[in-house]
Amino acid sequence: MAKKIVLGFSGGLDTSYCVKYLGEDKGYEVHSIIVNTGGFSEEELKQIEAHAYKLGVKTHTTVDAVKSYYDRIIRYLVYGNVLKNNTYPLSVSAERLVQAVHIAEHVQKLGAEAVAHGSTGAGNDQVRFDMIFHIMIPNVEIITPIRDLKLSREAEIEYLKGKGVDMNFNKAMYSINKGLWGTSVGGKETLNSKGMLPEEAWPTQVTAKDEREVKLSFEKGELKAVDGKAFAHPAEAIQYLQSIAGAYGVGRDIHVGDTIIGIKGRVGFEAAAPMVILKAHHALEKHVLTKWQLNWKDQLAQFYGNWLHEGQILDPVMRDIEAFLENAQQNVTGDVYVHLAPYRFQIIGIESKFDLMSSKFGKYGEMNNGWSGEDVRGFSKIFGNQTAIWNAVTEENKQ
Amino acid sequence: MAKKIVLGFSGGLDTSYCVKYLGEDKGYEVHSIIVNTGGFSEEELKQIEAHAYKLGVKTHTTVDAVKSYYDRIIRYLVYGNVLKNNTYPLSVSAERLVQAVHIAEHVQKLGAEAVAHGSTGAGNDQVRFDMIFHIMIPNVEIITPIRDLKLSREAEIEYLKGKGVDMNFNKAMYSINKGLWGTSVGGKETLNSKGMLPEEAWPTQVTAKDEREVKLSFEKGELKAVDGKAFAHPAEAIQYLQSIAGAYGVGRDIHVGDTIIGIKGRVGFEAAAPMVILKAHHALEKHVLTKWQLNWKDQLAQFYGNWLHEGQILDPVMRDIEAFLENAQQNVTGDVYVHLAPYRFQIIGIESKFDLMSSKFGKYGEMNNGWSGEDVRGFSKIFGNQTAIWNAVTEENKQ
Amino acid sequence: MAKKIVLGFSGGLDTSYCVKYLGEDKGYEVHSIIVNTGGFSEEELKQIEAHAYKLGVKTHTTVDAVKSYYDRIIRYLVYGNVLKNNTYPLSVSAERLVQAVHIAEHVQKLGAEAVAHGSTGAGNDQVRFDMIFHIMIPNVEIITPIRDLKLSREAEIEYLKGKGVDMNFNKAMYSINKGLWGTSVGGKETLNSKGMLPEEAWPTQVTAKDEREVKLSFEKGELKAVDGKAFAHPAEAIQYLQSIAGAYGVGRDIHVGDTIIGIKGRVGFEAAAPMVILKAHHALEKHVLTKWQLNWKDQLAQFYGNWLHEGQILDPVMRDIEAFLENAQQNVTGDVYVHLAPYRFQIIGIESKFDLMSSKFGKYGEMNNGWSGEDVRGFSKIFGNQTAIWNAVTEENKQ
Amino acid sequence: MAKKIVLGFSGGLDTSYCVKYLGEDKGYEVHSIIVNTGGFSEEELKQIEAHAYKLGVKTHTTVDAVKSYYDRIIRYLVYGNVLKNNTYPLSVSAERLVQAVHIAEHVQKLGAEAVAHGSTGAGNDQVRFDMIFHIMIPNVEIITPIRDLKLSREAEIEYLKGKGVDMNFNKAMYSINKGLWGTSVGGKETLNSKGMLPEEAWPTQVTAKDEREVKLSFEKGELKAVDGKAFAHPAEAIQYLQSIAGAYGVGRDIHVGDTIIGIKGRVGFEAAAPMVILKAHHALEKHVLTKWQLNWKDQLAQFYGNWLHEGQILDPVMRDIEAFLENAQQNVTGDVYVHLAPYRFQIIGIESKFDLMSSKFGKYGEMNNGWSGEDVRGFSKIFGNQTAIWNAVTEENKQ
Repeated sequence: MAKKIVLGFSGGLDTSYCVKYLGEDKGYEVHSIIVNTGGFSEEELKQIEAHAYKLGVKTHTTVDAVKSYYDRIIRYLVYGNVLKNNTYPLSVSAERLVQAVHIAEHVQKLGAEAVAHGSTGAGNDQVRFDMIFHIMIPNVEIITPIRDLKLSREAEIEYLKGKGVDMNFNKAMYSINKGLWGTSVGGKETLNSKGMLPEEAWPTQVTAKDEREVKLSFEKGELKAVDGKAFAHPAEAIQYLQSIAGAYGVGRDIHVGDTIIGIKGRVGFEAAAPMVILKAHHALEKHVLTKWQLNWKDQLAQFYGNWLHEGQILDPVMRDIEAFLENAQQNVTGDVYVHLAPYRFQIIGIESKFDLMSSKFGKYGEMNNGWSGEDVRGFSKIFGNQTAIWNAVTEENKQ
Repeated sequence: MAKKIVLGFSGGLDTSYCVKYLGEDKGYEVHSIIVNTGGFSEEELKQIEAHAYKLGVKTHTTVDAVKSYYDRIIRYLVYGNVLKNNTYPLSVSAERLVQAVHIAEHVQKLGAEAVAHGSTGAGNDQVRFDMIFHIMIPNVEIITPIRDLKLSREAEIEYLKGKGVDMNFNKAMYSINKGLWGTSVGGKETLNSKGMLPEEAWPTQVTAKDEREVKLSFEKGELKAVDGKAFAHPAEAIQYLQSIAGAYGVGRDIHVGDTIIGIKGRVGFEAAAPMVILKAHHALEKHVLTKWQLNWKDQLAQFYGNWLHEGQILDPVMRDIEAFLENAQQNVTGDVYVHLAPYRFQIIGIESKFDLMSSKFGKYGEMNNGWSGEDVRGFSKIFGNQTAIWNAVTEENKQ
Repeated sequence: MAKKIVLGFSGGLDTSYCVKYLGEDKGYEVHSIIVNTGGFSEEELKQIEAHAYKLGVKTHTTVDAVKSYYDRIIRYLVYGNVLKNNTYPLSVSAERLVQAVHIAEHVQKLGAEAVAHGSTGAGNDQVRFDMIFHIMIPNVEIITPIRDLKLSREAEIEYLKGKGVDMNFNKAMYSINKGLWGTSVGGKETLNSKGMLPEEAWPTQVTAKDEREVKLSFEKGELKAVDGKAFAHPAEAIQYLQSIAGAYGVGRDIHVGDTIIGIKGRVGFEAAAPMVILKAHHALEKHVLTKWQLNWKDQLAQFYGNWLHEGQILDPVMRDIEAFLENAQQNVTGDVYVHLAPYRFQIIGIESKFDLMSSKFGKYGEMNNGWSGEDVRGFSKIFGNQTAIWNAVTEENKQ
Repeated sequence: MAKKIVLGFSGGLDTSYCVKYLGEDKGYEVHSIIVNTGGFSEEELKQIEAHAYKLGVKTHTTVDAVKSYYDRIIRYLVYGNVLKNNTYPLSVSAERLVQAVHIAEHVQKLGAEAVAHGSTGAGNDQVRFDMIFHIMIPNVEIITPIRDLKLSREAEIEYLKGKGVDMNFNKAMYSINKGLWGTSVGGKETLNSKGMLPEEAWPTQVTAKDEREVKLSFEKGELKAVDGKAFAHPAEAIQYLQSIAGAYGVGRDIHVGDTIIGIKGRVGFEAAAPMVILKAHHALEKHVLTKWQLNWKDQLAQFYGNWLHEGQILDPVMRDIEAFLENAQQNVTGDVYVHLAPYRFQIIGIESKFDLMSSKFGKYGEMNNGWSGEDVRGFSKIFGNQTAIWNAVTEENKQ
């Protein structure tokens, strides 16, 4: 009896090749799976399914992971205002991990003996898939035909044509990866250290002309409503905001960063909703959290983002950091007003009952009257006391 | 003989009051001093000097501190890409400390028995002046008439009119503070948690219409040339870049942050050159520094900015951090290309002989060929090894 | 009607003075309170109560805070292995905060208009009491007779004798403060930078002669049993362990550290049970936590200890850190073996079902076989890849 | 002509095997090298050299690296008070890196085409050697016979006997690694999670009976004299102190920690001089550095130690951290008094002209008089201000 293999499948050239190679050349019973993290329409998912069966898979599974993607990862990226190197919302990195986890769960469910992914040997994704599989399904063999065979695009096409496969073999000008938390755009200009993507390369074109304001309502750190329109799940609120903000072309940038394998890589991305949400959430936090909450959140979140990027989402330290971040969201409730204009946005301000700047509370006003210039005079003396002693001692010894 | 007092003097209502109060009511010999950190023209400085002498100071001193401001502080803010709460370039905070240091040095030079500043009891500046004075000139009395007497604006005007002082008593709509590293704008909208400053409130109006590119050339982390035009001192390069970028209205924002005295404060600012420089410098660093250099720089710089903001520039830990930051700049040499458009700018890319992404070196290319997909396969296994063991142990104990 | 004041009362000279001064000179209705954090016997508490009533308090309250002290603070000090400057278990600092919180709650319960503590103006405790009171009972006046009147010991004695008070007026050679988490010893040798406390100064004398082993059993980070003897509450386990380990004279040291007010202070302490528990707990963690859990716990715990020391227990960031620390304890279950000898102890080893070093699991053993020298060879290449590129680029530019 | 290979050589079974295997089976011209980091006597080095030539090496080189080991690494471990997991002075980890660097330099000097080390596939050392070689000599082939051939001890012995090699083939009960910064002891008890090494396993036996005091004199963080006896180089001072303290059996412990390859490992060590120096240096720092200097040194040093342990000494971030650490040593000058007793030691105190606790300076005394209880009262109000506001706002919203 043929051994079962689960294959992460996108319908593209590489994973189409894998179906044929694994099923026909290697004799596996191939079970393809696609994990949708928000980048595919229902129509596209149906086409991919049809394509999979046409290629000869035994079963094909479509997982709607949009909400689990939010619940397991994006939520914490918002809590932590995570931008890798202060630039990139980790659109792709986060997505891969959720995909890998769903694939591993599918392997467990089917009792498969092997698992395959279509990553090459040059990028981050191979490490993410490998690691999640090593951890979650340690006794399952990992097969990576594209990485191992080092085939050229042309060789793959020739092979598939030889197998009678009929699909779109054209290479897109830019490699696009779309998901709930942003879309990456790679190619040409991003392959060098200099050069911005041209207007036409961006999947979402700028169609909005009129500047406008949008209101984001957060509850305990999560986006619950946009312009007063409430959503059952934050993932829906994100998608709705994307439909508004995307048309303004905001959240476009190019990120250069460290890959897991030590080289530097550069990638364009558009992430209108993510960028607006992160900046709005941060603005709200600056009003409702204490200085050291802000400080430690930043430090932990920076690590969280980097470690996530490197595929280490299953390290238990990530759960510990999530506990910190979630606990810190208790007062992060309120509305944030954002001004949208073509190619840019601006935080206008916030309203929150937890606003530490607000003076609406009688008690708070009195308290303000509770300290005086005299108190600050004493404070300044004590606050600088150690450096004053250090300075005296050091000066004394210079003489 | 009258006791000498040195008074930090801006020519405004508060410090004009101080001259009269200290000189005539308290019998001090008043020596006024203004420390220019880039906000005053020569013409303005002359008017301030004339005003001081008219008020009756014994001597008035003008310190041109633009370069020492850069050398002592801004340099490190650039090295560290310092933005308080990821927003504010610390325009005012940094300035006050350099001013306080110059005033303290003037006290030492004159052998004055007292020093005065015009801060109120409500803000950060009082702490900064007090602390620097306590540390540098511990035996000199600090006198703060405005804080201590809690006078209203009206009372001060009445007092000065009574003394026959003739000056502009009109209150500006917004309180403006200008310097080499940005201009703060406070008033009306910034007094609440919501509301953006109107177009007319910004000191620098948007006059540039045509989008353009500008090239910033860094050497060991310092801005040395703009569009190929070299400058003898980075402070001049900053001023030149400001003359270009300011007209685009970039680098405008509102910051809400923690004051030293525990309350939250909100302030508008425009900082075209600083924001462009910080983002350009950071982009260059992302290409030439290693992952952990970027990581530790961020952590140290965040603390450096906060501690500076709180007036603690003389704590020796600041020298230690500066040693780290400076050492990390050795390869931060290269050109950064920036696209300017009204209200926004975009980093286009970099060119550097230290670019870790560059493939121009033969050796570097070979090395890239030196690792294979097989190496990464081994790497992934080891890189996830501990979490795999943790997962196995933890799962075992769930059963 | 006389205004009510709540007075933190220890029965010593300073707080005895306060009762008379507040009640008779200032006309308050004095309500004394003592919060026992483990340093007083029932007999001592009764004597203190009798002394309070004899001095003329309206009511005297004794709070048994041993368990709440553990639940609110010590628990997290254990989770975090907190030693200030890697030396001091924060015996006194932690205690004061729990005392202040209980006093503030008593003020709220009685509806008192004022609160008093007997701290001088020279130490940390005044800040801790002041701050907790400002935060929890902001509208209640804080009165600090000893700090404000700057009375000498002699003056206080004369005053009390004049009021007919009969108590022990002898000054102890060393100032001792005892509690559940250790005993501080100050005086003579600790007033200078050099000198160890003599044998006779230690409250607990070394009486154990025979070396022995003791077994500490932790569950989710908490000490639940000692030598197999289980306790209903960890505070009892700590006291039991103290009765064993104290006699060995372990956990004695002198700490020099930064006071809240900027000067350096030196204090002796004996903390047998705390030191044994902290080292045992840490040893267990080193076996069951991942590398980054250990790393981040250390960083957060260092801040937690320092911020606690400075009286900032009510900053909400402390709750966030506690959430992290508690979450990290899920696998910290197992036995730790400790060898006790006069003046020293040694961790012998641990046993835990969550031990990541253990090879008792079949799966775990297999996994170990799962990676090879070849995998490590690949790992080394990738792990050093970025530095290799950096080195090539840097060398190239030296030439 | 035979290709040249440089072989790291210790004279033990594994590297003896390598000489024969590389020279006779593989046809290399073998150049052996031993890098002495303080663990070998001149007599031993001569025997090893003779043994190498007898095995047939073309050349054998002995590098006296004791001072360069101190200058390049140990110095910074002292500055940073580095103890991995607060326990282990990194005796072996540090040593390997210096050895690898010297070997790589030898390869460059000889223009060898290959380099070999005798590490197995189970430990940390393979990664350290591999990485340093990949970075410093990227085009040189790395050959690791023991790791690749997975030979048993018996097979190696049989092979060598077959080649007519006569050497001591007995296996030591414990595996010992000695160097300037401590001696590791592995075997039997350390292979499990529980169990202390027996008295006889320690290379340095306890021979001192009388308790004594020793004085360590530091200059800018470096040990320059012991008991008033000055040394030309700190490495000599360390060796002298070891001759005194070693006989007391202090600095013995067992460390369990994370290996680079993800598993936990346990190792015994004795490090009398290192532990005494680290604790003495830290005690001095607690007197002369400011709070935040101590804090940041700890954070950076913890990373420095971990990253060094993982073989990453050549990452340029390490140079940046060294710049910080060195800068922070400017006032770390003074004497530290240490009490030695069998199996334990105690810091007695320090004397330093930079002591921030000292009151010998007139100015310093005055300054102390410069702040009052009233100042602290003001300080406490402001220091707790933000939490007070937070508490008021949060309580208000609970109602």
